[in-house]
Amino acid sequence: MNKRKGLRVFAPATVANVAVGYDVLGFALDKPGDELVVREGSKPGLVIKSIHGNSGLSKEIHKNTAGYAAFRLMESLGYEKEAVEIELYKKMGIGTGLGSSAASAVAGVFAVNEFFGRPYSKDQLLRFATDAEQIADGSWHADNVAPSLLGSIILIRDNASMDYVKLPVPEGLRVVILYPKISVLTKKSRAILKQEISLDLHIKQSANLGAFVAALYKSDLALMSRSLTDHIIEPQRAGLIPQFAALKALAMESHALACSISGAGPSIFALTDNTVKADNVLNVWTRFMSDKAMDFDVFISKINTEGAKVF
Amino acid sequence: MNKRKGLRVFAPATVANVAVGYDVLGFALDKPGDELVVREGSKPGLVIKSIHGNSGLSKEIHKNTAGYAAFRLMESLGYEKEAVEIELYKKMGIGTGLGSSAASAVAGVFAVNEFFGRPYSKDQLLRFATDAEQIADGSWHADNVAPSLLGSIILIRDNASMDYVKLPVPEGLRVVILYPKISVLTKKSRAILKQEISLDLHIKQSANLGAFVAALYKSDLALMSRSLTDHIIEPQRAGLIPQFAALKALAMESHALACSISGAGPSIFALTDNTVKADNVLNVWTRFMSDKAMDFDVFISKINTEGAKVF
Repeated sequence: MNKRKGLRVFAPATVANVAVGYDVLGFALDKPGDELVVREGSKPGLVIKSIHGNSGLSKEIHKNTAGYAAFRLMESLGYEKEAVEIELYKKMGIGTGLGSSAASAVAGVFAVNEFFGRPYSKDQLLRFATDAEQIADGSWHADNVAPSLLGSIILIRDNASMDYVKLPVPEGLRVVILYPKISVLTKKSRAILKQEISLDLHIKQSANLGAFVAALYKSDLALMSRSLTDHIIEPQRAGLIPQFAALKALAMESHALACSISGAGPSIFALTDNTVKADNVLNVWTRFMSDKAMDFDVFISKINTEGAKVF
Repeated sequence: MNKRKGLRVFAPATVANVAVGYDVLGFALDKPGDELVVREGSKPGLVIKSIHGNSGLSKEIHKNTAGYAAFRLMESLGYEKEAVEIELYKKMGIGTGLGSSAASAVAGVFAVNEFFGRPYSKDQLLRFATDAEQIADGSWHADNVAPSLLGSIILIRDNASMDYVKLPVPEGLRVVILYPKISVLTKKSRAILKQEISLDLHIKQSANLGAFVAALYKSDLALMSRSLTDHIIEPQRAGLIPQFAALKALAMESHALACSISGAGPSIFALTDNTVKADNVLNVWTRFMSDKAMDFDVFISKINTEGAKVF
């Protein structure tokens, strides 16, 4: 063990599903993201000393994704009795659709791995973070934790075996995120989905996913735009987000490449091929939400290719 | 119009579906393939003068995919009254699962386009060939005609708009084809498929398709191998092909990267990463089929990256 003194890490927010990759695709944002400080504790074992920015989260290790991911790592190393204390700085709300619980899980496991002198590669941390993510929404899937940890756009080929592919990010791509300040719980958002789909929709959607992957390798943004149409999930969830259809139409009229729901919502994202168009989308969304007197946050980000980092 | 004297073309056999891309993926083989001769006719209009190698096919333009594809091209050019005669050399059986009707359609339209001095690009011929393919199996899909015409591995993003992506072919890849000499009609093979699938299988299959596309761009044959598992179509169709499970097991034991049904069957294909392994698969399949006294053809091919050609 080559313990470090103490350090602070950042783990980014993420957009999962990405229109055509339900439970399969996700990408990382430059901001927002959770921060976490780890240092030597005053008694044996892992302790969550404090949580800043969100009073509702539990400080119990087994009920907190940051704590649980870190604990699973320590357990795997035989370090459960080491004195470690963490402080979590929540920089994003819960239930926004931007992978809040995943960012905390990644921050926890990444920080503690660094603290112990990096016994595991980033790749090896994925399983612990996914274990923890399961606490938050009840299902085992890595489409938020993988991009938060590793950066870029990630395709999870198989959740069970953690088989993933890190996909290339075309130059110039910008993401506009609109977070309407309403609560949509992932569990509810999952529960409304039909468990059967037609073979025809499967064909259409999987062809779009295949073409989206090709578009990333080819840096073909027109193909990407044609590919990012969700025939299955978005039509079922759109009703959970007030004014979704109007917001999407506004983004597409402002020449966005695509617009869909981020994760389980209520946040929505638009992709554009440059900053001017991203500004345009941001402006029309701001005007629309203000006119309707709806509470919201809106911001522009690149796709983050680095993932979790010490800073 | 810059009419040529007469010429002979080749259009290759194809493997459609490719385990994870039902109605979406197909690749071309070096052999077999249909040949077609086109020359000036003796009376106005298109005439199928003869069909060699298969006495069952109709010489009526509207009942023959080669004739119909060529006719649709001539119609589009306003050349319906031009005197054109074609001779089709069928080099492959009907109902083999190797895109026989598609190869004829492509040969017809490609030859006549060349004959008229190439008024259309290959890309523009796709629609005519797909029109004709619809005669043969009753559905509008380009997963055989596109690779036969264009070569390589083709992903059809959208059949309706003919939006496709030509995917890269990794070095060293070899295809082993086994054609058990039984008849499986595409229409029947389509009819047995359930029209509803579970969301869970959709997720698994589309993730595999996305990963397969990534594997081609990365030349990552291990990822390709992990990706080419068909959770939806193969389990439903395997029963149409005697000994399919045993044949697949033999191929995988011989270190094939993947093995599945070619198109609607009964042909099956295995992919290997070199010629030695391809030979091994060919040998175990030959021994097995001979032991069972089942009639068959078996052969090895590269993936054809050129598609239809004059020769």
